[in-house]
Amino acid sequence: MTSTTNFSLSPLYIILDPSVCPERPLVEVLTVAAEAGAVLFQYRNKTASMKEAYVEALALRQAAAKAGVLFIVNDRCDLALAVDADGVHLGQGDLPLDLARKVMGPNKLIGISTHNPDQVRAASAGKPDYLGFGPIFPPGSKRDHDPVVGLEGLRAIRAVTSLPIFAIGGIQIGQVGDVMEAGADGIAVISAILKAADIREAVRTFLSRMPTPASPAS
Amino acid sequence: MTSTTNFSLSPLYIILDPSVCPERPLVEVLTVAAEAGAVLFQYRNKTASMKEAYVEALALRQAAAKAGVLFIVNDRCDLALAVDADGVHLGQGDLPLDLARKVMGPNKLIGISTHNPDQVRAASAGKPDYLGFGPIFPPGSKRDHDPVVGLEGLRAIRAVTSLPIFAIGGIQIGQVGDVMEAGADGIAVISAILKAADIREAVRTFLSRMPTPASPAS
Repeated sequence: MTSTTNFSLSPLYIILDPSVCPERPLVEVLTVAAEAGAVLFQYRNKTASMKEAYVEALALRQAAAKAGVLFIVNDRCDLALAVDADGVHLGQGDLPLDLARKVMGPNKLIGISTHNPDQVRAASAGKPDYLGFGPIFPPGSKRDHDPVVGLEGLRAIRAVTSLPIFAIGGIQIGQVGDVMEAGADGIAVISAILKAADIREAVRTFLSRMPTPASPAS
Repeated sequence: MTSTTNFSLSPLYIILDPSVCPERPLVEVLTVAAEAGAVLFQYRNKTASMKEAYVEALALRQAAAKAGVLFIVNDRCDLALAVDADGVHLGQGDLPLDLARKVMGPNKLIGISTHNPDQVRAASAGKPDYLGFGPIFPPGSKRDHDPVVGLEGLRAIRAVTSLPIFAIGGIQIGQVGDVMEAGADGIAVISAILKAADIREAVRTFLSRMPTPASPAS
């Protein structure tokens, strides 16, 4: 952990992608989810221009600060720095970790998406703050996704790394227990929260099925 | 000027875009052009993943350092920082200038593309190191370009800003005199150099038709 904030206390990681819930303002989603207990959010926008993404990210960053929750930006280190996000989440096609660390400085969180044991090994060597791993199940938010790894895939990479692992990909409330049991430290969700009929209720139910995070002071 | 390097000494600005000369290694173009007297280069790649762009930009950055020429990265502040470029060139859809300055720090060059007087006024207010303005003529390297402004457009904005202006867009060797006379401080070229039969010769001819830059010591 290079950040002073111990983000691993939160097993629920909510990814805010406007392409998944175009009819709901993301600031509203963040605010309601934060009120329900979520403390870790990522802004993901793969299609907007930097200018558009900046406007959106800044509004979310301000809402996150108001709610006292962590705010990570997907892919773009410069956008993360521009809005003073708590960190950046890199894909396999993004800047290499060592370069991203140089750009972000020592105090920001950096996570990396991984999809197989080789990527997990390579990413772990670079000492990111956490890994994303998946898709565990077919994602609800991506069409051209990497091969589904299943719970077996998750179990296999648990032996490969000691870094915090956020499982991702099509995970619904009923599967939380199985996923955590297979070795995840947390679960990253998109559709399961963003498309929930009642976001507040969905967040509470997710959290209720996850281990209570230890107090940092304990 | 926020940079210690007085880039405005160079009236020729060569933009290296692999989509314009896929058959020629950009490092070779840079090296040959630098030998012929060019001292200001920009790396532009609108389609590569950040990881691919990083590999390409790093090789160019190293070649630029070896040749002792300035190296600017288009669009992506994080890539510019990752390869320690001399600056970044922003489009109208990129990070706002004040944010880019914050991300890049005080010592990097920042330029902005502009296409009409309003954009020139807005950009000038943010105190970039230089402006790009165009397209003066129909560009050889872009299909979906902004409206052609012509030499009259260039003359009109010369009255609007005191910043160094690089005219851009389809400028061939035979038009250099007209463009400089219309108020440009320099000319940014892509196709005219990258697609030249003899790059060395093309650079020399361009430079021979431009004012000799004053020595920084004079």
